[in-house]
Amino acid sequence: MKNTILRIIIVFILSFSVIAQTIQTEKKLLGFSTENSTKQTDLEAKFDASLKKDNLQTWLKRLSARPHHVGSAYGKENAEFMLSLFKSWGYDAQIEQFDVLFPTPKIRVLEMVSPQKFVAKISEPTLKEDATSGQKTEQLPTYNAYSVDGDVTGDLVYVNYGTPADYEELEKRGISVKGKIAIARYGGSWRGIKPKVAAEHGAIGCLIYSDPRDDGYFQGDVYPKGAYRNENGAQRGSVADMPLFPGDPLTPNIGATKDAKRLDRKTAPTLTKIPVMPISYADALPLLRNLGGAVAPTAWRGALPITYHLGGVNSVKVHFKLAFNWDIKPIYDVVAKMKGTELPDEWIIRGNHHDAWVNGADDPLSGMVALLEEARGVGELAKTGWKPKRTIVYCAWDGEEPGLLGSTEWAELHAEELKNKAAVYINSDSNGRGFLGMSGSHTLEKFINQVGKSVSDPQTNLNVWERSRANQIVNGSPATRNELNNRTDLRIGALGSGSDYTPFLQHLGISSLNIGFGGEDGGGSYHSIYDSYDHFTRFGDPNFNYGLALSKVGGHTTLRLANADVLPFEFTNFADTVGNYVNEVTRLADSMRDETKRMNDLISSGMWQAVQDSTENLIAPKIQSAVPNFDFAPLQKALAKLKESANNFQNATKDKKLSVSTQKALDQILMKSERFLTRDSGLPKRDWFKHQIYAPGFYTGYGVKTLPAIRESIEQREWDEVGRQIKLVSETIENFAAEIEKATKLVKAQ
Amino acid sequence: MKNTILRIIIVFILSFSVIAQTIQTEKKLLGFSTENSTKQTDLEAKFDASLKKDNLQTWLKRLSARPHHVGSAYGKENAEFMLSLFKSWGYDAQIEQFDVLFPTPKIRVLEMVSPQKFVAKISEPTLKEDATSGQKTEQLPTYNAYSVDGDVTGDLVYVNYGTPADYEELEKRGISVKGKIAIARYGGSWRGIKPKVAAEHGAIGCLIYSDPRDDGYFQGDVYPKGAYRNENGAQRGSVADMPLFPGDPLTPNIGATKDAKRLDRKTAPTLTKIPVMPISYADALPLLRNLGGAVAPTAWRGALPITYHLGGVNSVKVHFKLAFNWDIKPIYDVVAKMKGTELPDEWIIRGNHHDAWVNGADDPLSGMVALLEEARGVGELAKTGWKPKRTIVYCAWDGEEPGLLGSTEWAELHAEELKNKAAVYINSDSNGRGFLGMSGSHTLEKFINQVGKSVSDPQTNLNVWERSRANQIVNGSPATRNELNNRTDLRIGALGSGSDYTPFLQHLGISSLNIGFGGEDGGGSYHSIYDSYDHFTRFGDPNFNYGLALSKVGGHTTLRLANADVLPFEFTNFADTVGNYVNEVTRLADSMRDETKRMNDLISSGMWQAVQDSTENLIAPKIQSAVPNFDFAPLQKALAKLKESANNFQNATKDKKLSVSTQKALDQILMKSERFLTRDSGLPKRDWFKHQIYAPGFYTGYGVKTLPAIRESIEQREWDEVGRQIKLVSETIENFAAEIEKATKLVKAQ
Repeated sequence: MKNTILRIIIVFILSFSVIAQTIQTEKKLLGFSTENSTKQTDLEAKFDASLKKDNLQTWLKRLSARPHHVGSAYGKENAEFMLSLFKSWGYDAQIEQFDVLFPTPKIRVLEMVSPQKFVAKISEPTLKEDATSGQKTEQLPTYNAYSVDGDVTGDLVYVNYGTPADYEELEKRGISVKGKIAIARYGGSWRGIKPKVAAEHGAIGCLIYSDPRDDGYFQGDVYPKGAYRNENGAQRGSVADMPLFPGDPLTPNIGATKDAKRLDRKTAPTLTKIPVMPISYADALPLLRNLGGAVAPTAWRGALPITYHLGGVNSVKVHFKLAFNWDIKPIYDVVAKMKGTELPDEWIIRGNHHDAWVNGADDPLSGMVALLEEARGVGELAKTGWKPKRTIVYCAWDGEEPGLLGSTEWAELHAEELKNKAAVYINSDSNGRGFLGMSGSHTLEKFINQVGKSVSDPQTNLNVWERSRANQIVNGSPATRNELNNRTDLRIGALGSGSDYTPFLQHLGISSLNIGFGGEDGGGSYHSIYDSYDHFTRFGDPNFNYGLALSKVGGHTTLRLANADVLPFEFTNFADTVGNYVNEVTRLADSMRDETKRMNDLISSGMWQAVQDSTENLIAPKIQSAVPNFDFAPLQKALAKLKESANNFQNATKDKKLSVSTQKALDQILMKSERFLTRDSGLPKRDWFKHQIYAPGFYTGYGVKTLPAIRESIEQREWDEVGRQIKLVSETIENFAAEIEKATKLVKAQ
Repeated sequence: MKNTILRIIIVFILSFSVIAQTIQTEKKLLGFSTENSTKQTDLEAKFDASLKKDNLQTWLKRLSARPHHVGSAYGKENAEFMLSLFKSWGYDAQIEQFDVLFPTPKIRVLEMVSPQKFVAKISEPTLKEDATSGQKTEQLPTYNAYSVDGDVTGDLVYVNYGTPADYEELEKRGISVKGKIAIARYGGSWRGIKPKVAAEHGAIGCLIYSDPRDDGYFQGDVYPKGAYRNENGAQRGSVADMPLFPGDPLTPNIGATKDAKRLDRKTAPTLTKIPVMPISYADALPLLRNLGGAVAPTAWRGALPITYHLGGVNSVKVHFKLAFNWDIKPIYDVVAKMKGTELPDEWIIRGNHHDAWVNGADDPLSGMVALLEEARGVGELAKTGWKPKRTIVYCAWDGEEPGLLGSTEWAELHAEELKNKAAVYINSDSNGRGFLGMSGSHTLEKFINQVGKSVSDPQTNLNVWERSRANQIVNGSPATRNELNNRTDLRIGALGSGSDYTPFLQHLGISSLNIGFGGEDGGGSYHSIYDSYDHFTRFGDPNFNYGLALSKVGGHTTLRLANADVLPFEFTNFADTVGNYVNEVTRLADSMRDETKRMNDLISSGMWQAVQDSTENLIAPKIQSAVPNFDFAPLQKALAKLKESANNFQNATKDKKLSVSTQKALDQILMKSERFLTRDSGLPKRDWFKHQIYAPGFYTGYGVKTLPAIRESIEQREWDEVGRQIKLVSETIENFAAEIEKATKLVKAQ
């Protein structure tokens, strides 16, 4: 009790110091005149007041009541249900169907052949504590979508997370996966990277298991006692080579309409090269326990009660067999428009996916229901006579789980229209409890920071932006903390992949944002049958407080973008961020050069060999090519231009009242500015990805690589490519800077 | 095969580059004229040639054949056997007996009372793969020596390593051990700290278990398959409050002779305040598995296949009962002297303990047999007519395990004689495979670095110093690597405690060294019945190659110190090192000041509270007293004098030929110089520890604290004490510097 009083006092103090201070400075909204700022703030207050938490709960329960993966009956029902909701709220809504390759398992067998016989269960049991866990006839079994069919038998090798660096460790120990089966644990990289890298090293099959270290008992009590993955839980998921291109594997670059020209499945490049399947730790334990060979490096050891060994020859032999129904299945995107009154051809697109691997209460419905309530709130406003200046498009994507299918096919089909009309794409996906996460185009960094200050945090008397900032101040690195003292805005994350912003941002060059709450809702239900309403309402966001907060953040973002006098793009933060990326790639080259020289010297002098334990028989790494001195001057020059143009634009627009015609003309430049960060030729080895600043890593899958063409050429030691890419990227940045200068001229000319 | 050839080529290259270069520079030995250096080098070659690996093996087998703890029949036999060896090699050897308090268990019971009934086995089973593991009648059971008797029942709380910082984490979670039983895992601090800190926080009992994360299956295969601790292995060991004083708990400061005046056991301050016992992880698992309450912080989680919880009220209740035979037992130090021809009253003392918790093949016999072979080699030399200039004293200590009993009682009994005659004490303890470890007085840093270059590494064609250096170059931090490019000598470690150098260095102020090999012989046999001949010859140093290398390093060290024209003390490395310590304590105060301010601000503004997960109910830490600005000027001034005096001495002695009488007079100053680093009043709260530069930490137990009076006053936030101690330590350093100036004058006066 005493403690509670203390808490109240503290929150009281806080509300008069931190909050008051920042809130007051934010009366003028980016992109709005002072007068229109007030109107907009009033509108948002009205919007907030109309939102109802109960709707989130009702819809979450309804949408997660049955499995609703691609091609399922309930998936279609959900789409139709949402369509009817959007229509009832006054939207011009429709379902857009695409027809995509979507394999489902026909045969799944995994057994240990030697030294003992063991047949894996590969099944998640029904729990009496979880009402939907028993819907066996409708559940997709545990599998990895876009694994090829296969029937393989071989020695097992433990490859840790299965990243390229992990194979270097194996090589030091003289262990090859060639002709063998790799067993990797989930984590460390996106799952699709594991079979890709295993196949590159000659493996004939790949198992992926969930180690209890990563999302099981090591992290917390397991389901149903706690939120974490129990011994039988397994993680479904796509293993298509999405860093090459996402979407339907048979229709890259084009919409997967009924009559689209499709690739032959046998040659479709994003299908895996080897069969791959996910297993639980109950199924993995007998295999790993029996593995012989060298003991795994310390960082490779998980939380199973065994000594982790690497395996290899004559240790554990496994057989597994996979066969799939290689069907073309329909997917249903729900697209709901509210036409803009003044600028109908400027679209603010707001999306979340609706398909799940099973019941998907958390992933994706926790975000989906927040979007629905947001759309309802906007609809309510429209019923009172207000209308957006720009067109608002709400989207509920299907087929995100197998590979961003719904969003990608839609974006590909409507590419030309979107390039002309799309101003911003705002994404959300699963939503949890905790801190506001903000990522996306840094031209919107200032904007989304300001939005964050307009929504109260449900647990404290701070706004959600302040709580995120407080978290960085309390838990951030000294460098982060130091920067926060000298920077008005929180830095937003750069987008890699893993959700539906990818086709918009990285394929079409549409400025994008991704928003959601998290950090306090840890668990291990991801892509299992236990991602259920019961699980989410116990461990996720039980009171839907953060769901409602997401409705508000999403709503304010959408409404401000739709209503602004001028689109609230800002370039100095972007220039600052690109400056950091330039420093990073420069330092990366420098540190790789130093480290390469150091290791080569150690190895050729025999020093490295001399300090190895002779009982471990380690093999010295190969001598590597020296890292050249790259000419980063063009990049520095482009960066200087970018900074100059960003400052010029900021100075030109400061306190300047623009005519309606100038606003319109300026909007046209701003909304298309991100297109100038793309190149038609795309990135090396993957031309679908056009953006030159942000991309998912070729070997991370989800994790972002900024200045990807330069950074990955360095990382992958393709020295000739580095100089070429520095030139191309520099040219891109200069073109972008020229666009900003164009905008500045326009403003000045008025 | 190809690989082997490559290896040979590399080693070949290496031997002609790195080695040749350094070896050549070391023809002139520290403390010797050029002429005498050559003689000494020849002597060492003769010594090396006489050493036989087979002796190490024979003695290890013999000495570890039966349990030989304090008071055991076989311990006495071992002492008598070694006495006869020393005598046979021509030493003037004797056994010195002391009578010490040494409790052995009468009753040991541990059971879980609720929520389930479970009775702990607290027993290590016989293994057919281990020939001595079945010697049940002679083995000491698993227990912690100097635990008090007790019979306690209470709620169990998991306290991680049981350090003061761990209790701060518990406090944040509102968990107290008051009136409860703490269960700590081994590691993180010396074991005796765990019951000490638990009792300080009001616990009524303490269990200490071996988590498989720390020396069990997580680290490697368990015994007998591999070297690591199996589920039933438990770690015996002393829990006396040794940071207060080591040695017999009843006779602090005096030798525990038959008639010594003894403290009443009931008031003996180094006995624990609460009962404490060690258990295996098989016995700990049922308790930890049933613990409820909050989930333990990430860093607290071990490798058991459970979610680690903290426990507290109404979770797990345990009962344990301990009763001991509180006997006075005899211990037998074997002391073997070879009188110096020219300087018989300058003693070079070389020791290793011989007692073990059970069979102790590794701890301590691996070091003991190396010392024996060294002593035999020196004896052989003496038989050829050579005699040491100074007196050599070989010691085989008894009673090290319960608390450095043999060495401490001997040092206390002979304190006055030792203060007059002891020049250097050289310690070893367990010896493994790998890299030469060198620690001790930094006045001997240059000397021991040079010794390391005179012994070949058994696995490579490097010398053992070069291999240690190579290890730091390959695996060291960038700062370490950078320093190695600019520094001739490897830095040697500072001594805390945990072996027999403590009474010599920290009580009497005798310059000390500790030497041994390790780093490639990991395992978990420590203080269990599995520390056996079978274990050591499979996983320790199977071919006794590193045992023989230790005989050489120890022999060269001893012979050089015994034969040198002038004792090879050098002060610039010491001054450099003290300079680093001064920087460390200054930075410690600065960083504590910053961090205290930061945390106080975060807590009083409510920022800290605002970012906590409300479901975790964390309590904000208390506001702490601000860290004052201390006046470090006296310390800086003393350091300047120290550096100046060290340089003056170095310049004065460089290439100077000294007369025999000057050498003698100089020796007297040098050999006693370390005494000037002590203060009779000792450290705050523990006057037994006199040394002002090195001490075991009051809350680390073994881990060293340099400039301990200052450093610990800061760490323990005793602000008034800090200034006082800065003055005293500065005065000590100035006195020491004055002694060096005295030596310089002496040299110059010649």
